[in-house]
Amino acid sequence: MKTIDLNCDMGEAFGSYVMPNDEKLMEYISSANIACGFHAGDPAVMQQTVSLAIKNGVAIGAHPGLPDLQGFGRREMKITPDEVYQLTLYQMGALAGFVKAAGSKLHHVKVHGALYNMAAKDTALAKAIVQAILDFDPGLMLYALAGSKMVEEAEKVGIATASEVFADRSYQDNGLLTPRGADHALITNDEDAVKQVLGFALKQQVSSVNGNLITVKAETVCLHGDGEHAVAFASLIVGMLKKEGIMIKAPLI
Amino acid sequence: MKTIDLNCDMGEAFGSYVMPNDEKLMEYISSANIACGFHAGDPAVMQQTVSLAIKNGVAIGAHPGLPDLQGFGRREMKITPDEVYQLTLYQMGALAGFVKAAGSKLHHVKVHGALYNMAAKDTALAKAIVQAILDFDPGLMLYALAGSKMVEEAEKVGIATASEVFADRSYQDNGLLTPRGADHALITNDEDAVKQVLGFALKQQVSSVNGNLITVKAETVCLHGDGEHAVAFASLIVGMLKKEGIMIKAPLI
Amino acid sequence: MKTIDLNCDMGEAFGSYVMPNDEKLMEYISSANIACGFHAGDPAVMQQTVSLAIKNGVAIGAHPGLPDLQGFGRREMKITPDEVYQLTLYQMGALAGFVKAAGSKLHHVKVHGALYNMAAKDTALAKAIVQAILDFDPGLMLYALAGSKMVEEAEKVGIATASEVFADRSYQDNGLLTPRGADHALITNDEDAVKQVLGFALKQQVSSVNGNLITVKAETVCLHGDGEHAVAFASLIVGMLKKEGIMIKAPLI
Amino acid sequence: MKTIDLNCDMGEAFGSYVMPNDEKLMEYISSANIACGFHAGDPAVMQQTVSLAIKNGVAIGAHPGLPDLQGFGRREMKITPDEVYQLTLYQMGALAGFVKAAGSKLHHVKVHGALYNMAAKDTALAKAIVQAILDFDPGLMLYALAGSKMVEEAEKVGIATASEVFADRSYQDNGLLTPRGADHALITNDEDAVKQVLGFALKQQVSSVNGNLITVKAETVCLHGDGEHAVAFASLIVGMLKKEGIMIKAPLI
Repeated sequence: MKTIDLNCDMGEAFGSYVMPNDEKLMEYISSANIACGFHAGDPAVMQQTVSLAIKNGVAIGAHPGLPDLQGFGRREMKITPDEVYQLTLYQMGALAGFVKAAGSKLHHVKVHGALYNMAAKDTALAKAIVQAILDFDPGLMLYALAGSKMVEEAEKVGIATASEVFADRSYQDNGLLTPRGADHALITNDEDAVKQVLGFALKQQVSSVNGNLITVKAETVCLHGDGEHAVAFASLIVGMLKKEGIMIKAPLI
Repeated sequence: MKTIDLNCDMGEAFGSYVMPNDEKLMEYISSANIACGFHAGDPAVMQQTVSLAIKNGVAIGAHPGLPDLQGFGRREMKITPDEVYQLTLYQMGALAGFVKAAGSKLHHVKVHGALYNMAAKDTALAKAIVQAILDFDPGLMLYALAGSKMVEEAEKVGIATASEVFADRSYQDNGLLTPRGADHALITNDEDAVKQVLGFALKQQVSSVNGNLITVKAETVCLHGDGEHAVAFASLIVGMLKKEGIMIKAPLI
Repeated sequence: MKTIDLNCDMGEAFGSYVMPNDEKLMEYISSANIACGFHAGDPAVMQQTVSLAIKNGVAIGAHPGLPDLQGFGRREMKITPDEVYQLTLYQMGALAGFVKAAGSKLHHVKVHGALYNMAAKDTALAKAIVQAILDFDPGLMLYALAGSKMVEEAEKVGIATASEVFADRSYQDNGLLTPRGADHALITNDEDAVKQVLGFALKQQVSSVNGNLITVKAETVCLHGDGEHAVAFASLIVGMLKKEGIMIKAPLI
Repeated sequence: MKTIDLNCDMGEAFGSYVMPNDEKLMEYISSANIACGFHAGDPAVMQQTVSLAIKNGVAIGAHPGLPDLQGFGRREMKITPDEVYQLTLYQMGALAGFVKAAGSKLHHVKVHGALYNMAAKDTALAKAIVQAILDFDPGLMLYALAGSKMVEEAEKVGIATASEVFADRSYQDNGLLTPRGADHALITNDEDAVKQVLGFALKQQVSSVNGNLITVKAETVCLHGDGEHAVAFASLIVGMLKKEGIMIKAPLI
């Protein structure tokens, strides 16, 4: 039986600012990447989100980001590999505390926002993230952009990876994402997005922006958790995947 | 052979602001309470300080504080027991990440500043701290003010404690600290401070501000790490303790 | 012709966390208290909110709060009068920068949350806020709880005040608010809230929780800006006030 | 009579972290660039530093930086011109509040660290800083790297500038600073540094790393305020300048 993982960034509320979709989305996804307090999240939100994930049987991942709450971790910062190692370790540890206290176990790590994009291309930063996982718990899995330096570096040292693809982003002929800002970078039509996810799940294939069928390693699909439409889209995707007999399930460590 | 623990708050640097005594003090103390990023400390400082403690064979404790960097965690905040539980868990977890990555094990927890004072007197806050330890790792020890609610609540649930006394604070007839601001609250004379520490270590006794000999449970002595005199005083104390045949050693878990 | 001021806390978004009612509410109110970055707000939000207020002809006030973003400035902190002076001055200055750059003028100051409650009862803190206004711009008006120490201290030194009352809080026989948490502290019924506002505007009178008619100095009514119902309630109140021939208008400096 | 301005970054303490040289350095310099709370400084430090500058008759400048306390504003962040405008305006306003409350007037603006370097080369960021000054107070002067985009953009719109040179950095034949990290980028010898400052002050000339005499517009010399040697060097420079009959004085607005 074919399986696919659906992951979503969760716990990105902060203080009195809520993320209203989290509770509902947990019913659809198999992996939650929980913010750790640097780009979003705070200790209260982390505790609640961990508890929600456990209740829904969702695999829990740490979702460390840059120390930039105002920019939501989306603004690139020139930081050194040492700093990346340190902030990844700090945030993984903090989230692992809540997971352990709740009687569960951390499953994976997926870095956030600008750090995700920077470490996808930069070997030194990718190594730093992988080293932090290796030193903290080599049994954790790394979720990272399919074809990225992060996947490459993790594999070198034996950290298990889940190659991540996107429901609402288009792909170029070389298997990489069409850069945001370029024409047709975003898939705004539900039908197309569902079709793309089914292609990933059934055949590890996607139709590129140029209309060519290409192969992409697709082990986990990222769903977006914000926006009014997020829950409806998750529900739609899950319905279609089930209809095709595809099981939604986090990868086994 | 008599033993006593000497603990000191460490890793309270932040960013480009350094704490110049840390490296030298590590040579004298047996327990380091390492700041976790809320009242002081940052991921880089935490990594360096953990590494320094390991190098010197010093027992490592988490030193969680209130989220108030400007106030150095010394300004009381009206926070709920839930919030105390969450911030303690978050900070313990974050520090434990660095300790684990460095191949060592967390030994104890000592809360900082205003939180220390609040939880010494407030049962609900003391319970919250103890619960966080219990849920995270019941094998950790709690360092807390001798005679405080924290010690009381920890003992109730079987968390090991080390009752803390101070070298440079005077005691009242009831065994509690003379409040800061009151006459003779601080012991500013090295000779008197040394004498007090020896009394704690040899006989669990101290001479109160009124000159009466009283008994105080004294398992760990807090040395202050800031100020130009800190290293010299640590050296002096350690010399005197050794001369009296007292071993300086963190309590076994 | 009778007039009343309707004020609302505005610009309490932060980074990617939005406050969706601000734009609509600006059409109904006469005074906006704009957050200044400590309990909420950031430089981008401040610029946008100032611009929105100017566009709607709404009087602009600085809304300084405690440095506690996670707690939204609602958690009491033990801070000194000097610290209150400094954080008030800092935040007033920062907001005044945006107001000046946009070609307008700051009109008033209203402190936020726990600081508002603390300074309502504590003379030293009230004096510190008043002194900050006096030193920064004695032409600014202070909006503060009717009958509070803040109003008292401002009047002593000639700072103009607007006594604030609430649409959705009940009053005791002594003219003070029923403490939150007590029975009937909140007015949850729109009809009662409207009636209370009309009483304030027309007769400076309110019916206490015990049903007695009491007199309260009411120069500005606080409307709450959060919650799904906020815009509808603002619209309702404005409609009723206009029907009674009452003009909605910020107090002249 | 020849004059030169000596400027120094001041008020870069934070909370309990002190900057011990500030008080002494104020006796030697003519312009203080005071940190505004984003990369360093807090409301208490700002108030004290403004007061210190006034006491010593030193011209007060706002010293806005990136929102990165841990990185001391020295890590580049990818921020938009709008964000640069907003954070410059916010921080200028905040500092101006303290200056006004203390009965004085803001004199200039000098941006800090990574923002200084980014805006030296990036026209859009330079424009954003200049626009913030123009909108806030066109009478303020901009202190900026000699030959930078900031100077260029300020001159275009009529903002007065002071071209900044450094005592302890070497210059290339093209009049630009030798990049940090390159050979001989730093001048570590006091004698050479003094000689360089005298060259700037007397002849607007400097000997390049290649030994060629080049002309550099030098209106203000930056002295570094940190390090144990800072006060001694300031004293040395001031002595030499006076000996040569050069007056140390902030540029008139």
